[in-house]
Amino acid sequence: MFPERLKRVQGKVQEALDHALAFHPDLPVIHAMRYALQGGKRLRAFLVLESARLHGIHEGEAMAAAAAVEALHAYSLVHDDLPCMDDDDLRRGQPTVHVKWDQATAVLAGDALQTLAFELCCDPSLGARRIDLVTALAKASGAEGMVLGQALDIAAETATDPLTLDEITRLQAGKTGALFTFAATAGAILAGADTRPLEDYARALGLAFQIADDILDVEGDPKKAGKKLGKDAAAGKATFVSLLGLKGAKTRARELVAEAEAALAPYGMKADLLKEAARFVIARDA
Amino acid sequence: MFPERLKRVQGKVQEALDHALAFHPDLPVIHAMRYALQGGKRLRAFLVLESARLHGIHEGEAMAAAAAVEALHAYSLVHDDLPCMDDDDLRRGQPTVHVKWDQATAVLAGDALQTLAFELCCDPSLGARRIDLVTALAKASGAEGMVLGQALDIAAETATDPLTLDEITRLQAGKTGALFTFAATAGAILAGADTRPLEDYARALGLAFQIADDILDVEGDPKKAGKKLGKDAAAGKATFVSLLGLKGAKTRARELVAEAEAALAPYGMKADLLKEAARFVIARDA
Repeated sequence: MFPERLKRVQGKVQEALDHALAFHPDLPVIHAMRYALQGGKRLRAFLVLESARLHGIHEGEAMAAAAAVEALHAYSLVHDDLPCMDDDDLRRGQPTVHVKWDQATAVLAGDALQTLAFELCCDPSLGARRIDLVTALAKASGAEGMVLGQALDIAAETATDPLTLDEITRLQAGKTGALFTFAATAGAILAGADTRPLEDYARALGLAFQIADDILDVEGDPKKAGKKLGKDAAAGKATFVSLLGLKGAKTRARELVAEAEAALAPYGMKADLLKEAARFVIARDA
Repeated sequence: MFPERLKRVQGKVQEALDHALAFHPDLPVIHAMRYALQGGKRLRAFLVLESARLHGIHEGEAMAAAAAVEALHAYSLVHDDLPCMDDDDLRRGQPTVHVKWDQATAVLAGDALQTLAFELCCDPSLGARRIDLVTALAKASGAEGMVLGQALDIAAETATDPLTLDEITRLQAGKTGALFTFAATAGAILAGADTRPLEDYARALGLAFQIADDILDVEGDPKKAGKKLGKDAAAGKATFVSLLGLKGAKTRARELVAEAEAALAPYGMKADLLKEAARFVIARDA
């Protein structure tokens, strides 16, 4: 069910991303963009397409939005990995963009991936309400969303006291939650439907996802994760695990998955795949 | 006429930009964004508002687009000034963002300014055709526009041969021309009118602007320019001056201004201010 569906989404969204860059000039920055768009779970793209299906929108009428959310996600990873940010050498089991090319190319490729996300969201295939989707993407990406999260993360590194649970929750709501919310509500936005049930679902899902990430950082296998683990503990950074303990974090993640499932009640059985996705988020090993 | 109008635009667009960031959280990245949005000639904002006026669109129905183009321009400056890019310490007479804060804040503030540009372009005040404007902004910003120009610029730095006139023209068409074209056609796009005359105007204007920049880099006063000059010659970089000579560059700039004026013929006397702007572009000292 969910694993097969996710696999199918991975193929389809990669096709859409490849197509979007097919006629771009032969320059290092374009190669770096293609490289940064390879791999990944494509969970955000899946959320876009499921959200669309729930509102009677065909895959082809939402695929550009699914590609857009992955482009925006890839941009944030390329910039977050920079030496002046988190300084990561490995991502999805491969050298990061600034390691494989250089910092200038990484800054520029990230910039271009953000632009690409907006370009994809403007695609006429998304229909008449796509201006609302672009507006939502700007909100998720900007100073109320991902930029806020990353800014709070930078501020935390120089702060004297470790973050509290409330502060980490706010940070993650920006860093991870905002794009999950965009993805999960995309179909409702394109259909002009009420976005609240899917907002509630995404809020719980995003937080569960981040708690699972913190657990993986402690318990995970770096080979499967494709990136360096244990960094947060080594840096003395507050995480959900350091604040709640390993057991407490796992309990909280399970509660959030239950919350996410409950938020989908208005959609009945039609939302079973989204519920499965929520359970997957805390059971994954990468 | 033109100088008074430009002065008025400067005040109005600064107001719009300040308003856009008025309710943002109190974080270094937001301060850096405000800082990067100070000053500047606001020539691109002027082009948006004049283009709108030519098509019967009131200032208030185009102001968000004028602010958007300045936000996108500011983003490109903050990232271009980074140590891994052009490594500039001074901009508009002030320390650049990464000097005043740090590189992480500069990367993030630039990212957030790009998002802000798209957010502003989605403002409902711009009316029903704003989706076309967002589409045009993505095109100007992306791998066919500013990113292409910057990528060619990076490639030129490691190339063994200096660029030819054709190559520099293509580079500048991306780096400067694309955003000028967006700005000058914005009013036509919002009105659903033919954009070609203004595209021709902007292409000539953008190139004249860049040639004037190259001339200023040789002949200008660093105090008036507010940035370091003579960098291109010191780096052995090909410029319009190195390729055409100082006299040849001045002649070419004057020809381009005449071309830009001629392109406005369909608008008659209504376009006199845009013609004046074209003459200003090559007469400026900053």
